[in-house]
Amino acid sequence: MIFHRVKSEGTAHNSYLVGSGNEAVVIDPRRDCRVYMDLAKQNGMKITMIFETHRNEDYVIGSVELQHLTGAEIFHGEGLDWRYGTIVKDGTPFSFGDYWITAISTPGHTDESMSYVLLDSPTTGAAMMVFTGDALFVNDTGRIDFYGPDEAQRLAGNLYDSIHKRILPLGDQVILCPGHGAGSVCGSNISDRDESTIGIEKIRNPWLQIQDRDEFTRLKVAEKPEYPPYFRIMEKYNLEGPPLLGDLPFPAPLSPEEFKEKMDAGAVVVDTGLPTVFGGAHVKGAYSVILESLSVYGGWVVPYDRPILLVPEKVDDVEEAVRYLVRSGYDRIEGYLHGGTEGWYNHGYPVEKLPLVSVHELKRKLDSGEDIFVLDVRDENEWRSGHIEGSENIYFGHLEAYLDAVPRNRPVALICSVGHRAGLAGSILLRAGFENATNVLGGYSAWVTAGFPIEITKG
Amino acid sequence: MIFHRVKSEGTAHNSYLVGSGNEAVVIDPRRDCRVYMDLAKQNGMKITMIFETHRNEDYVIGSVELQHLTGAEIFHGEGLDWRYGTIVKDGTPFSFGDYWITAISTPGHTDESMSYVLLDSPTTGAAMMVFTGDALFVNDTGRIDFYGPDEAQRLAGNLYDSIHKRILPLGDQVILCPGHGAGSVCGSNISDRDESTIGIEKIRNPWLQIQDRDEFTRLKVAEKPEYPPYFRIMEKYNLEGPPLLGDLPFPAPLSPEEFKEKMDAGAVVVDTGLPTVFGGAHVKGAYSVILESLSVYGGWVVPYDRPILLVPEKVDDVEEAVRYLVRSGYDRIEGYLHGGTEGWYNHGYPVEKLPLVSVHELKRKLDSGEDIFVLDVRDENEWRSGHIEGSENIYFGHLEAYLDAVPRNRPVALICSVGHRAGLAGSILLRAGFENATNVLGGYSAWVTAGFPIEITKG
Amino acid sequence: MIFHRVKSEGTAHNSYLVGSGNEAVVIDPRRDCRVYMDLAKQNGMKITMIFETHRNEDYVIGSVELQHLTGAEIFHGEGLDWRYGTIVKDGTPFSFGDYWITAISTPGHTDESMSYVLLDSPTTGAAMMVFTGDALFVNDTGRIDFYGPDEAQRLAGNLYDSIHKRILPLGDQVILCPGHGAGSVCGSNISDRDESTIGIEKIRNPWLQIQDRDEFTRLKVAEKPEYPPYFRIMEKYNLEGPPLLGDLPFPAPLSPEEFKEKMDAGAVVVDTGLPTVFGGAHVKGAYSVILESLSVYGGWVVPYDRPILLVPEKVDDVEEAVRYLVRSGYDRIEGYLHGGTEGWYNHGYPVEKLPLVSVHELKRKLDSGEDIFVLDVRDENEWRSGHIEGSENIYFGHLEAYLDAVPRNRPVALICSVGHRAGLAGSILLRAGFENATNVLGGYSAWVTAGFPIEITKG
Amino acid sequence: MIFHRVKSEGTAHNSYLVGSGNEAVVIDPRRDCRVYMDLAKQNGMKITMIFETHRNEDYVIGSVELQHLTGAEIFHGEGLDWRYGTIVKDGTPFSFGDYWITAISTPGHTDESMSYVLLDSPTTGAAMMVFTGDALFVNDTGRIDFYGPDEAQRLAGNLYDSIHKRILPLGDQVILCPGHGAGSVCGSNISDRDESTIGIEKIRNPWLQIQDRDEFTRLKVAEKPEYPPYFRIMEKYNLEGPPLLGDLPFPAPLSPEEFKEKMDAGAVVVDTGLPTVFGGAHVKGAYSVILESLSVYGGWVVPYDRPILLVPEKVDDVEEAVRYLVRSGYDRIEGYLHGGTEGWYNHGYPVEKLPLVSVHELKRKLDSGEDIFVLDVRDENEWRSGHIEGSENIYFGHLEAYLDAVPRNRPVALICSVGHRAGLAGSILLRAGFENATNVLGGYSAWVTAGFPIEITKG
Repeated sequence: MIFHRVKSEGTAHNSYLVGSGNEAVVIDPRRDCRVYMDLAKQNGMKITMIFETHRNEDYVIGSVELQHLTGAEIFHGEGLDWRYGTIVKDGTPFSFGDYWITAISTPGHTDESMSYVLLDSPTTGAAMMVFTGDALFVNDTGRIDFYGPDEAQRLAGNLYDSIHKRILPLGDQVILCPGHGAGSVCGSNISDRDESTIGIEKIRNPWLQIQDRDEFTRLKVAEKPEYPPYFRIMEKYNLEGPPLLGDLPFPAPLSPEEFKEKMDAGAVVVDTGLPTVFGGAHVKGAYSVILESLSVYGGWVVPYDRPILLVPEKVDDVEEAVRYLVRSGYDRIEGYLHGGTEGWYNHGYPVEKLPLVSVHELKRKLDSGEDIFVLDVRDENEWRSGHIEGSENIYFGHLEAYLDAVPRNRPVALICSVGHRAGLAGSILLRAGFENATNVLGGYSAWVTAGFPIEITKG
Repeated sequence: MIFHRVKSEGTAHNSYLVGSGNEAVVIDPRRDCRVYMDLAKQNGMKITMIFETHRNEDYVIGSVELQHLTGAEIFHGEGLDWRYGTIVKDGTPFSFGDYWITAISTPGHTDESMSYVLLDSPTTGAAMMVFTGDALFVNDTGRIDFYGPDEAQRLAGNLYDSIHKRILPLGDQVILCPGHGAGSVCGSNISDRDESTIGIEKIRNPWLQIQDRDEFTRLKVAEKPEYPPYFRIMEKYNLEGPPLLGDLPFPAPLSPEEFKEKMDAGAVVVDTGLPTVFGGAHVKGAYSVILESLSVYGGWVVPYDRPILLVPEKVDDVEEAVRYLVRSGYDRIEGYLHGGTEGWYNHGYPVEKLPLVSVHELKRKLDSGEDIFVLDVRDENEWRSGHIEGSENIYFGHLEAYLDAVPRNRPVALICSVGHRAGLAGSILLRAGFENATNVLGGYSAWVTAGFPIEITKG
Repeated sequence: MIFHRVKSEGTAHNSYLVGSGNEAVVIDPRRDCRVYMDLAKQNGMKITMIFETHRNEDYVIGSVELQHLTGAEIFHGEGLDWRYGTIVKDGTPFSFGDYWITAISTPGHTDESMSYVLLDSPTTGAAMMVFTGDALFVNDTGRIDFYGPDEAQRLAGNLYDSIHKRILPLGDQVILCPGHGAGSVCGSNISDRDESTIGIEKIRNPWLQIQDRDEFTRLKVAEKPEYPPYFRIMEKYNLEGPPLLGDLPFPAPLSPEEFKEKMDAGAVVVDTGLPTVFGGAHVKGAYSVILESLSVYGGWVVPYDRPILLVPEKVDDVEEAVRYLVRSGYDRIEGYLHGGTEGWYNHGYPVEKLPLVSVHELKRKLDSGEDIFVLDVRDENEWRSGHIEGSENIYFGHLEAYLDAVPRNRPVALICSVGHRAGLAGSILLRAGFENATNVLGGYSAWVTAGFPIEITKG
Repeated sequence: MIFHRVKSEGTAHNSYLVGSGNEAVVIDPRRDCRVYMDLAKQNGMKITMIFETHRNEDYVIGSVELQHLTGAEIFHGEGLDWRYGTIVKDGTPFSFGDYWITAISTPGHTDESMSYVLLDSPTTGAAMMVFTGDALFVNDTGRIDFYGPDEAQRLAGNLYDSIHKRILPLGDQVILCPGHGAGSVCGSNISDRDESTIGIEKIRNPWLQIQDRDEFTRLKVAEKPEYPPYFRIMEKYNLEGPPLLGDLPFPAPLSPEEFKEKMDAGAVVVDTGLPTVFGGAHVKGAYSVILESLSVYGGWVVPYDRPILLVPEKVDDVEEAVRYLVRSGYDRIEGYLHGGTEGWYNHGYPVEKLPLVSVHELKRKLDSGEDIFVLDVRDENEWRSGHIEGSENIYFGHLEAYLDAVPRNRPVALICSVGHRAGLAGSILLRAGFENATNVLGGYSAWVTAGFPIEITKG
């Protein structure tokens, strides 16, 4: 038997390929799906089945793409008006090589959510692995807010039941294979350790320490994760089957002149460099979204109906940027700036800066009474759990809608956890004509490390 | 400026990518053309133009495929009813980055043949490189037999003129970039050295030592290269634009049962192992075509209208086999034998052997008067220049049509240069029910090395 | 946390790298140990500790080599006169990044055997992983025969206790990380599935179904695994610290003349091709050891005090062959045959064959009364559990010592499980001047698949 | 025949591997020389000879290292007290495979300089390639300033003779293989095209347009290239044979605490990020040397007797940085900052900035009468050929020695060609306590592109 966990950075999405004999199955493939083909090839296998744990909402599923390449059959749970694939019922076993996959219904995150159990026999209870999608993560559990507040209570209860009545009873020995790892927007406390078992979770996962269904439900409902606008598009794609991608697009290298021309014609510009790079100098008008965050933060600001232009730090970053973007359904990537920002300003085209300020400088200025508007762009949960006294909170994803709440005549110090979202927020302000924004280097975590005072909002 | 020679084994085809600034051009791309994209990407370039030296006949041109991926424009010479691309006239210059390509008409190999000259200016005579397609090779010149015997004289004369009036006058300093390297069916004496210049050729190329047009013509016409049946298909493809390939097909690993089923349904089986492997044991009914020869020897026996099954020595060989096959227009590769010949006979399915005999054994047997039918399957030119006394000559590519000329009641010793074509010939005989064939290990070259007597046929 | 299982083909040895923060630890590194460096580099980590589960006997441990490269500290169990590293006591915890490794003493396979438990705290019982070395495998348990028959009983009892009192009590949730995978000479029934947990083993491992210490001991003692001569050398190396390897040696490509010269001067020749390749034609005098078996079968016949020459099927095989050999302590690899067997016979040098016979042919011949000496070269356990009626059994590893038991005047049909060991046995007979040996294609497994009668020896 | 040009970024050093049969030779190998081994391996060859064109001064030669790995013999010219290798005389031929290398004496750059001619025969004049070291480049010629002003005249004359009497007579057809490509400190006008021939040079190389020996000499002597201090060390290394490198060192990832500790103990810190990155925020006290310039600019400021610490932009940059450093003989690379500058300031350690100013801003400020000290840190030749009016010129490499010439009470705008050397100069000023330095983005080239006025110094 072969087993591969395929991790997709950015979305922190985990997919899996399991093979035996000359057959392999894939659970929750990503859209740039050649990786599964390559694994199958190297092992002399063909991919025969694709299992979806649910209609994913934070990335474009690659099932249809992979089916197109391999002819494999697609399976998913019931309750949605799927336009592709086959619905699988609770308890259905599927065989490949010497192993079996049995589907179990685990609603909660969504109603149609399925988990898939790996066994070495169709009938025994000796489960070996379980692919839980967004039901149970390492150290965390799935979100239950996707159907809106009215349904949250019901979903949270369902999730409790799915975990306690379907997943945990599989046994402590079962290896846990969830749909996301650390960094996902689908779970804020997922561990950076990928290896776990049901038994380890029972000991270590904070949610599994709650033995009361009502308490579990209450706490799940109290979670208020952000809901990015691109989720709706992912849901549509994943219900209907997204457009076929074929080859990974490769945006053309554009000379500064060509780049400028496309900008002027309405393309949106995304600079994928770190805040320090972006802060020093960047193409005027660009959004600042670091490479690793393109799939996640990018979806808050990058429109789906305009061509995208990239400003990479290095040519090598372009392919990775493209992967992140197509995983979020952005297919119109028209080019990248040949020679980067350096080529741009060498041509005398306009650059802007987003000055950086250290927490020490910020503290000094605040102490000396400078009238700084400290804008914390983390989400509400983060903000409540600790922030600089006197700071305001607008989530970076909502900033374009709340520009009026930001003063134009005062210096604005943008702060997030380390500086990435603050950089994006800064680029939003620059695009809106703000002239006094700075990015707090190291963000709230450097503030805390420096031992400066914080304020906690009880809620 | 960047310059890359992309060599395709099997067809011994050379293609080229040249880039400057953010633009690159490709000369005579192959069909599995991602390699050019990757080179362009790594160098921050986009491919803007594709130049074809002529309607190639020994491989499927990748221009249409590459255009599909990149949007580049395709150019080729006039005189054919091309269904794609743009016709370029003698003398037309094309600019990219800091360089220029100028087309010059160099008929001879075919009427529409163009060469392309690389310069650093549109007007100067300071040529730097020339892409000659099948006009001038390192150490050899192009074939002139494609229009039939009636036209050979005319084409040979044209070739002489193209070389002497168009190519050589570019200057000794010009770097030569021909369409083929050693091992091509388009030139039997091409050097295994890729680096050359016009000046080096003037000193070393035997054809350029002939200063008399009539003598050159006479000798070219006297060449009698074999004309494989697949050439006609390549020509059709390359005139009309071949079917789009998209992803390189990856044949499925088939269990012996699945493989057997497809064989029984009419698929043709190709074993890509070396003669020693094939000789030891192979799937009964398979053709023996070693990996490197799939594009070239394969085209003589593998039909275009039946699915193909592969028996690779190793899983890693499958991708290479597929590349060779699609370069020759074989797109219906349905699977390969999982576990190889070993898996096959472990399942108890029928194998056959093609016993190997060393030249020493063969000599001993012939000396002792054994009634062996020594069948030399090299081409007529090779045979005439030296062979075992008493041997018969049937080119392996014609063997299926001349089976009646081979005795069924005598031992048959198959010989070629080293054993590859003899292996293929042996597989043809086995398929036809011959029971006494052997492959002479090391072939004619081992015979000569051993110092055994040979016979030369004057022509 | 990062976790990597590094599998070494041939020895089927598993080693592990676990990292957290900027520190990584390695368990049981192999000798060609750059792989751990590369993993550490890619993850921005330094290797600080190396843990040995025991003095391995089937491969050269890479601890000293890796220490030389990284400066990491080496730890192993007590009871041996180690010439390197530091002895670790039962219960000692080691911290790296956010995790801990705690050593537990698990004698049985050997007296100094340790297991290492991964935890996220120095004090809790929440074990996450356990590195068991040769105590507990997926589906099997370690050998207890290394101290000789007098000690076997005691060791088996210790092993039972180590498993039941130290390893299983860690909990069903613990992920199992043993020292070997399928194909190891250290356990004949190890699963080809690498993923397991203590809980899965409790359900599926046949040895854990035995709840009686005496019964377990009796059955362990009854196992009679073969003991290859190279084990003694590995033990010495691993006690004293093997010679530093530095760069992986790369044997020179030798022309047939150079190769011949070194052969004549006493070098031993190893052909790494498959039996079908070797059978067709091979360098006279070569041993037949397929690539994947070099570490394991090679150790029975290849001497440590003579230079080694390789005959690879492909140039690419050379590096892999070298890895296998150095893992078994063979450092004197002087060259390989450039051009392979084909180059050899093209030069007219002497080749030999080892004819192949299918099980169908063999059956026919036996049925027709041919006086064939069927020699089964599998080990005694395999032979007892089923063999061709009338066959004799000499383990291939003992064949050179028992040549007198093989008749020189009768055809000898060599058989093993699929043909690899029979090929090696055949090469031994050819070297000893036998002229009538054949290799049974597909071996005993093809015989069984064909439905031919077998005989079982009760023991 | 195989031919590979191995380009080493940074030093813009070209080395070459040429092979035929099973033998290969290397010309001017670099110190991290596994690349040649790998090429030889892939082609089934062994490296038998190493040719040095001269005692290189701008990088550490890899001959001794490669000899250690392969046993190949080393050859170089006469006139130096070499501590390794064998002296080769003018006209000596060496054979490998089907080809020959003949040495010809081509003094000028240095007295012992040799060129090596590739031929297919020991006696003919049909030269195919020539390896010219630092005698003749594509578009340029070698430096003649290494023996000091007193010898320059003599060397320049020798160089003229070597080119005109030894190299050019080889023939227009000869492919030129020089020791450096574009970007080398050994020739400021080397073309970015690597492919050339003697004939192309005769048409295009400006130095070959000068037919008068005296005029050539006069112009060569008038060239005043900078002479970095590390050249002396390279010369010593390359005369005596540098220390063996063995494995490429891999510096440990250091936590901010560990990094700080080593800094405090005297290690020198090098930030390899782009000026925009460095400008935004960097470890206080670091030198700014971008990755690609480590070998070249680094040698002006980085001491040989102190440990080196790196601040890379990405972990992947570390290996490349190490290659650049060891090529210049820096072997004491003790670690790199884990988590980069971001990790550093997240820990609250002190950062500094080097503000960036665009040419437009600078122009505006100068026009408005701001008292800015514009310091141009390019070399004298660059400065003379055009600079901002009123700017001062101190080569960045001399800046540490001339700090007194820079005012501490005025804003300093540092300018070079694009910003890399100005960034390094800025880091020098910051280390020296200057507080008002800025880096002019895009440098002189952006200034010119913007159409701002310049001043040319005749002389």
